[in-house]
Amino acid sequence: MAGSTYGTLFSITTWGESHGPAIGVVVDGCPAGISLTREDIQQFLDRRKPGQSKFTTARKESDQAEILSGVFEGRTTGAPISILVSNQDQRSRDYGKIKDCYRPGHADYTFDAKYGFRDYRGGGRTSGRETIGRVAAGAIASKLLDQLGIRVTAYTKSIGTITVPETSYDHGCIQNNPLYMPNLEYARKASAYLEECVKNKDSCGGIIECVVTGMPAGIGEPVFEKLDASLAKAIMSVGAVKGVEIGGGFQTAQMQGSTNNDAFCRDDDRIMKRTNHSGGTLGGLSDGSPIILRAAVKPTPSISQEQDTVDIHGDPVKIAITGRHDPVIVPRAVVVVEAMTAVTVADLLMRNMTARMEYLEEIYNK
Amino acid sequence: MAGSTYGTLFSITTWGESHGPAIGVVVDGCPAGISLTREDIQQFLDRRKPGQSKFTTARKESDQAEILSGVFEGRTTGAPISILVSNQDQRSRDYGKIKDCYRPGHADYTFDAKYGFRDYRGGGRTSGRETIGRVAAGAIASKLLDQLGIRVTAYTKSIGTITVPETSYDHGCIQNNPLYMPNLEYARKASAYLEECVKNKDSCGGIIECVVTGMPAGIGEPVFEKLDASLAKAIMSVGAVKGVEIGGGFQTAQMQGSTNNDAFCRDDDRIMKRTNHSGGTLGGLSDGSPIILRAAVKPTPSISQEQDTVDIHGDPVKIAITGRHDPVIVPRAVVVVEAMTAVTVADLLMRNMTARMEYLEEIYNK
Amino acid sequence: MAGSTYGTLFSITTWGESHGPAIGVVVDGCPAGISLTREDIQQFLDRRKPGQSKFTTARKESDQAEILSGVFEGRTTGAPISILVSNQDQRSRDYGKIKDCYRPGHADYTFDAKYGFRDYRGGGRTSGRETIGRVAAGAIASKLLDQLGIRVTAYTKSIGTITVPETSYDHGCIQNNPLYMPNLEYARKASAYLEECVKNKDSCGGIIECVVTGMPAGIGEPVFEKLDASLAKAIMSVGAVKGVEIGGGFQTAQMQGSTNNDAFCRDDDRIMKRTNHSGGTLGGLSDGSPIILRAAVKPTPSISQEQDTVDIHGDPVKIAITGRHDPVIVPRAVVVVEAMTAVTVADLLMRNMTARMEYLEEIYNK
Amino acid sequence: MAGSTYGTLFSITTWGESHGPAIGVVVDGCPAGISLTREDIQQFLDRRKPGQSKFTTARKESDQAEILSGVFEGRTTGAPISILVSNQDQRSRDYGKIKDCYRPGHADYTFDAKYGFRDYRGGGRTSGRETIGRVAAGAIASKLLDQLGIRVTAYTKSIGTITVPETSYDHGCIQNNPLYMPNLEYARKASAYLEECVKNKDSCGGIIECVVTGMPAGIGEPVFEKLDASLAKAIMSVGAVKGVEIGGGFQTAQMQGSTNNDAFCRDDDRIMKRTNHSGGTLGGLSDGSPIILRAAVKPTPSISQEQDTVDIHGDPVKIAITGRHDPVIVPRAVVVVEAMTAVTVADLLMRNMTARMEYLEEIYNK
Repeated sequence: MAGSTYGTLFSITTWGESHGPAIGVVVDGCPAGISLTREDIQQFLDRRKPGQSKFTTARKESDQAEILSGVFEGRTTGAPISILVSNQDQRSRDYGKIKDCYRPGHADYTFDAKYGFRDYRGGGRTSGRETIGRVAAGAIASKLLDQLGIRVTAYTKSIGTITVPETSYDHGCIQNNPLYMPNLEYARKASAYLEECVKNKDSCGGIIECVVTGMPAGIGEPVFEKLDASLAKAIMSVGAVKGVEIGGGFQTAQMQGSTNNDAFCRDDDRIMKRTNHSGGTLGGLSDGSPIILRAAVKPTPSISQEQDTVDIHGDPVKIAITGRHDPVIVPRAVVVVEAMTAVTVADLLMRNMTARMEYLEEIYNK
Repeated sequence: MAGSTYGTLFSITTWGESHGPAIGVVVDGCPAGISLTREDIQQFLDRRKPGQSKFTTARKESDQAEILSGVFEGRTTGAPISILVSNQDQRSRDYGKIKDCYRPGHADYTFDAKYGFRDYRGGGRTSGRETIGRVAAGAIASKLLDQLGIRVTAYTKSIGTITVPETSYDHGCIQNNPLYMPNLEYARKASAYLEECVKNKDSCGGIIECVVTGMPAGIGEPVFEKLDASLAKAIMSVGAVKGVEIGGGFQTAQMQGSTNNDAFCRDDDRIMKRTNHSGGTLGGLSDGSPIILRAAVKPTPSISQEQDTVDIHGDPVKIAITGRHDPVIVPRAVVVVEAMTAVTVADLLMRNMTARMEYLEEIYNK
Repeated sequence: MAGSTYGTLFSITTWGESHGPAIGVVVDGCPAGISLTREDIQQFLDRRKPGQSKFTTARKESDQAEILSGVFEGRTTGAPISILVSNQDQRSRDYGKIKDCYRPGHADYTFDAKYGFRDYRGGGRTSGRETIGRVAAGAIASKLLDQLGIRVTAYTKSIGTITVPETSYDHGCIQNNPLYMPNLEYARKASAYLEECVKNKDSCGGIIECVVTGMPAGIGEPVFEKLDASLAKAIMSVGAVKGVEIGGGFQTAQMQGSTNNDAFCRDDDRIMKRTNHSGGTLGGLSDGSPIILRAAVKPTPSISQEQDTVDIHGDPVKIAITGRHDPVIVPRAVVVVEAMTAVTVADLLMRNMTARMEYLEEIYNK
Repeated sequence: MAGSTYGTLFSITTWGESHGPAIGVVVDGCPAGISLTREDIQQFLDRRKPGQSKFTTARKESDQAEILSGVFEGRTTGAPISILVSNQDQRSRDYGKIKDCYRPGHADYTFDAKYGFRDYRGGGRTSGRETIGRVAAGAIASKLLDQLGIRVTAYTKSIGTITVPETSYDHGCIQNNPLYMPNLEYARKASAYLEECVKNKDSCGGIIECVVTGMPAGIGEPVFEKLDASLAKAIMSVGAVKGVEIGGGFQTAQMQGSTNNDAFCRDDDRIMKRTNHSGGTLGGLSDGSPIILRAAVKPTPSISQEQDTVDIHGDPVKIAITGRHDPVIVPRAVVVVEAMTAVTVADLLMRNMTARMEYLEEIYNK
């Protein structure tokens, strides 16, 4: 069934395989009148492109975005925005092993089980390249949010066992290290950790954190389209994510009500919370505090060690994934998490526009 | 915006407030020909009803389900199934404090921020009673799954700091203790822990685990309607859930690819996995192993200790939530997690029916 | 598949069979703050109830609406509004013929073909009583539209061969005759025509017209959710409707561009059209003129003449539909067409709220 | 709001403006395993391309389709199918008049009213070129239907006052005349009629008829996603269509039940109808007879006569639309109606796959 569209009012449809001629996204429902250029999108794409550090694949992907529709004289028109990125690296290779056997930790087997066969070239639709469409859409959503004073920032909280404690956060340096960590010292430690992984022909996982500031209160739609529920889906739909939490998250399970509840207070005539264990949502609606979410990312399944598996007939074989693969998915997924968060928040902000009859009167009774 | 409907093909719409005349659900898209009685639904509702142990509210809620449509001569007809539960306890009370101030950890403030005012009686739409509709729908989804050999089982993995280790699971005793823990010894410990909470006028959180067995491989719709992403949303949409993980979940973030990857093998001509760190999904599609997910539940926000907060004008006040409230939400939420999982899996099984042209030919070219 | 929900932002879900315990609707996404009482809804329901004239069934249907949720202290809260109407007339009868054979012009055969069996009591889900939910929802949508100065009015344009010419319209008398015609003289003629039908054990069709005034320009969502396309679906989904047209409609097919085009002009600083052949839409968006649509309604299929048909085994039988049936569906369907139009327009007005970035800034940057 | 996506399971998203770099469609949810080539799509596109007769625009549009994703080794994979057609004719022109004033019968004014401004080049998003995406998607849906023995055929029933009577249909010659009429004699008459229109600097409308044969009974989803309701929306969403009818349509309004009802009978152990006034649907579900629908198309609004209108400031101006324009839209819209019908039927066939529990058991319990 159709599963490549996400969002109700701000709606994105991604398409494309790793080794087809191109990959892209259609963003539908974007309000008219937002200034938008190719560079706005390119800037986001460049953050996920490989070759930024020694830990990302050497595959040459220039990933140049083209805007094919929906923008006129530098502004969105309200029509669907189609963005296309040509695949540079379509040369036919020897996919022998990948074609005929099921890589552990990959979706080869499950795609065959679902569809009867699969486009095995470079992972096909399950390739990380699918996220190009998400990131391009996220760039547009971020422009929309910017104009409302809302800012989404994602970064690497941990790589393997190296975790940046909250007390050491320096958001200013996130873009200054190829791992997108909010602390250069920990980035160095993580880099050493990764070198060890590579040496062992192994890979590791990590945690991405994402913060949304400037959120008005009341965003999210009871009872199924809650802000936190929608974010959970958005983030969990990113390949390799195995867990999502908001605010205190799993630690909350061990807390007491008296310490977990955030006291309300007044600050400058605004109602605020003294703490933010809730991570910015109460009853599934934004509570005016920053939204804080974390995503657990599993280790890259492609490792050059020999692994046991079966071929497509079920016969046991050994496989070692050759070629260069990132030993960790986290750094390149940071912008993907940021993009999916931005798209989700934009959509829910738009959905909230009809929460009150007075809003309709404001727009129509002029 | 409309946010009370969940599911695409197997679609549920819940309605009702805590202190209105009734609460209910409409289940639309249920296939015709499933045997269904009032008792099938009542059995599920009885698992969430209060008064089962000393830790659940004494409020008298008999919660008797009525089926108003969609069933004829004991079988579903394909028409929407409307289920209604009358609210017994609508007597008007003094809601003074709740009406005029914002309870910490509750959605009072965020609902006012969204809608301009709120039905403050007993939490209104944010009451735990909203889950009655979900559970009734889950009962129907479970009947559907049963017929395909698929079984969903949820239980309490931990209450506060008391966690049942996987090695001590005894699924047979889940229904034999009011906390729905899979080990009676740990249930006793958790009970003692809860008594301490109550004594301290406090509350605690916990973790619910849910397992789905008998799943065919390939269920889930790339790339946004993945099985794990859909489950994440379904579970996170349950009030008080602050985190969701699949399989290894957050622990995966600290693992290596070599240990986290599940090797494929053959067993009796079926392709299997030797381990199940993936929790039953690869690339967002079911991989034939049991689905395993966990939900982190925050402590009950209603505590009888005095807390700081503000009234609806923003002026600081003190509040102590009187009346009896469960010191932990987890046991009554177990069946809710099970229900939301069942609904999600049923919907995705139905969506998968059109994955292959040969399925269409099978149904239509007879 | 789930097909009982209509509308994206203003979303209605109907449920219920003719002879089940009750019938109803859940209206989700209604903005908070609209004044709403049981009487607002009852007023609409009374317009579709039988027994108003000698041409409507004598079945005793008092059709009293209950509001079960979503309204607090006389105003909508933003939560789903559940409305229930008990079925009074559930006594078991002899459904022998209906149960075992396929009535010509009815959905008995197609429901069996789809679901394998059917609830045959009184038409089950295909009964005209299903429209109760639509009408109740339409009453709410009309309250919303009223507040924005938008008014929907439906009436009977023709019954059989008796057609009220546009030049003879007197909207003031629509509610003053049981056929809801905009001219009392034609209503008398139609009444005589119907008596002839009844005498001949026959039935007839007719045309319903619906006008929406006060529409702002620009409502409708290109390119599939156009205003006229959405109205066409809404109206065609009413049982017995076999055609829908907007403005000039089918006559347009024989016109020339020079006469069919409506010239734009200025009136009091507003841009207007001199004529309204377009029926109020251009490019699928409202153009500021009144929306005008017409629905063709087929003759009541239940007639007391003997007809040829087959039983459920395919064997030929004769059938004469006994009991009293309306010789024409049109008068009771007038309020249904009005309701579906109101729901559709309300939904599209809400969807249009995010057409421009400046609207978002207006709501959020205060 | 997002309105460029149509269909639930077989879902199409069109994008692109007349004078942007390209135009296209993403088809999501197409079952895996359908043989599909670029030529399958090109064949459909060629039927809507201009320059086929003297009555279609001379604008050079070669409209070559590229398949960018979703097809592997000649078969659909289940992944979204992205199809792109480059716009050849993007040279900048003098849009002076179109830019600054509102053409009668066009959407210039309504787009400005909705979005605040518009891409005025060649009609932008409202250009007939938008249908390229629909037609490409229809080509794919038709391949799917073919494999189930279902065939969709559209043709020109009338042009202006020239109507082919049903008794004179010769389906074999539809593709043999540039007007796609089912009778060559009437095609000649229509051609003469059109020459007269052109001479008078005028345009005309017409009627397109579409027939679907091979339909299984029971297709359509009660009560809002009925087959006829869905078709009505699909067809009315095509620019210039002002009316849609099924079977007897508007004539039904003047018929009697005794003549309009189709008697059921048995033929070769199959249940059939003796007549087909219903146009192939009963209760909104297919009844096994051919689906017959008609669309009323308004005259081309672009005419070279001088017309009264206003500029974007509301000031009165005269306008004559220069350049060559088709004097009638009908012939090029025939394949668009066919495509939208095919997409709608394919979607509803897929939705019907879960109507019965036995279908689920058939697919899953093997």
